[in-house]
Amino acid sequence: MDYRSAGVDIDAASDVVRRVRGLAQKTFTRGVLSDIGAFGGLFQPDLEHVDRPVLVASADGVGTKLKVAFLADRHDTVGIDLVNHCVNDILVQGAEPLFFLDYLATGRVAPDVLEAVMRGLADGCAQNGCALLGGETAEMPGFYAAGEYDLAGFIVGLVARDRLIDGSGIRPGDLLLGLPSSGLHTNGYSLARRIVFDTLQLSVDARVDELGATVGDVLLRPHRSYLRPVRRLLASGDPLVKGLAHITGGGLTDNMPRVLPAGTAARVDRGGWSVPPVFGFLQREGRVPVEDMYRTFNMGIGMVAVVAPDALPAAEAALAEAGESGTAVIGEIVEGDGRVVYG
Amino acid sequence: MDYRSAGVDIDAASDVVRRVRGLAQKTFTRGVLSDIGAFGGLFQPDLEHVDRPVLVASADGVGTKLKVAFLADRHDTVGIDLVNHCVNDILVQGAEPLFFLDYLATGRVAPDVLEAVMRGLADGCAQNGCALLGGETAEMPGFYAAGEYDLAGFIVGLVARDRLIDGSGIRPGDLLLGLPSSGLHTNGYSLARRIVFDTLQLSVDARVDELGATVGDVLLRPHRSYLRPVRRLLASGDPLVKGLAHITGGGLTDNMPRVLPAGTAARVDRGGWSVPPVFGFLQREGRVPVEDMYRTFNMGIGMVAVVAPDALPAAEAALAEAGESGTAVIGEIVEGDGRVVYG
Repeated sequence: MDYRSAGVDIDAASDVVRRVRGLAQKTFTRGVLSDIGAFGGLFQPDLEHVDRPVLVASADGVGTKLKVAFLADRHDTVGIDLVNHCVNDILVQGAEPLFFLDYLATGRVAPDVLEAVMRGLADGCAQNGCALLGGETAEMPGFYAAGEYDLAGFIVGLVARDRLIDGSGIRPGDLLLGLPSSGLHTNGYSLARRIVFDTLQLSVDARVDELGATVGDVLLRPHRSYLRPVRRLLASGDPLVKGLAHITGGGLTDNMPRVLPAGTAARVDRGGWSVPPVFGFLQREGRVPVEDMYRTFNMGIGMVAVVAPDALPAAEAALAEAGESGTAVIGEIVEGDGRVVYG
Repeated sequence: MDYRSAGVDIDAASDVVRRVRGLAQKTFTRGVLSDIGAFGGLFQPDLEHVDRPVLVASADGVGTKLKVAFLADRHDTVGIDLVNHCVNDILVQGAEPLFFLDYLATGRVAPDVLEAVMRGLADGCAQNGCALLGGETAEMPGFYAAGEYDLAGFIVGLVARDRLIDGSGIRPGDLLLGLPSSGLHTNGYSLARRIVFDTLQLSVDARVDELGATVGDVLLRPHRSYLRPVRRLLASGDPLVKGLAHITGGGLTDNMPRVLPAGTAARVDRGGWSVPPVFGFLQREGRVPVEDMYRTFNMGIGMVAVVAPDALPAAEAALAEAGESGTAVIGEIVEGDGRVVYG
């Protein structure tokens, strides 16, 4: 008995490492000192103009959106989802991404599938100016169904301590400026899949006329990165935003409270923006209570910036300059106990 | 239909976050600025005495050792495995750990199991002076079997650029100093499980007389951290080691080449140390070819330090001072093409 007969193919894994190396190298920024395959990835940050550097780190997964990728046999977008999700998670504290590492676990290494996943990761990293510094590909027979995998990511970014965005300056009267999402991003897929595939019995290739696209196209639309527009908001000497919330698992209901200081709440005006059709479709077909919709899906708002009323025109102008359209004032900060109140 | 009926329980997940927060806080070192639950974890490294700081990052998983933990229903050691594995992976480049993040994915959140896993992670972090800065717990119904989970970790460490260990100074004649492993560490479990559970049909509670312990005790023994002894090797002004290899998946055969400069090879003397009984047991019962043993398991050597012959006495003394026993010269560097040659 040997390792291969026990289901682990080290040679196939080495082949993947070779394929991935070229993809990753294209993402290498100036700070990268190592190559893929080293025990650890090496990154020397440029700290010359950063006073009291703070590292900001986050871990995340793609979640069950992966199941849609399996059904569609389309593996080059989930990496983009993951990188953008991670970039947004540290961006809300003011951090610029430095580097990213992935964890990919599968039952049996399928080199073409893995290469597609890695291509998505590399594309996502390149788009965000973030180095794909390393990662782990784990072959775990008996853990994952044939052709399936799980994918997680880890990002590290940098911000000067006095440029940290922590929401502490948020006051009643501040406004909630919503930035549009591109779709479901990476949250709510367990519910969305149940509605679409179990209740409606749709196939991934089925066209949904009211959405103007196939189920696969709608559900696999990649999670947006907000790096470009938010970077513009943060660029001025006195940042135009007091707080930022990435609207992920838990929706507006659970994510806004993460930036609210004591004694405040967020009043969200559900009529303040037009909810994209996909959410109405899911709500109607799944008979989902509206409270659950706003605690499960992003409902068309992927990022919320909290701005003082007098900073609103400058913030809107900065976002427009960065090419951001469809922003909307979706509510305001009020006195309260840290919750979201819908009005 | 709501999110809970689709198999995702946000409240149970929040309960886990609450339980984990206290465990993680005990690991917080001076640099930690954030609390568990923030979008990103914040860490301000002390760079005052670090010339040209280099960040060293690594991602890893526990692999199918998790299956043994499931069988034994013992979940508080796999976190220690993972942290120590990660610590060793950046230690070989000379880095001290700063912080760690986990990714835990499961089919349905079982708070007690997750708390045990997190306790192991927190213990591992505390033992290595590394902050458990954050992580992601993903509930992914339909991905993982009932009661099962996958666990991955990400670590970031720090080293001054001129203290990086990269093996470039390794020359023929240098010696391989092996540091003992505590068991299988986290590699070779797909093969070991097949031999023990499928071929021998042993239960996890079965006592194996020649190993003086139960199957579960032998197979779940935690992966060692080499931080303490290796830190001592690196502490002197002129480091006593030229290269370090963490012997993980691929064994001595695949890991030694990762630090060999061009034109060199590693000659390993299989008689140079006493291989622990568990490996002989697996080899015999599984009829595993010897080449596969050395490319699958660590065979009792978890870390190899490459030292110049004249530095050997000082290196051995430093290791002894750090409480390390059972070290052995297991071979030497020769001219060659980057491979391991067994003699």
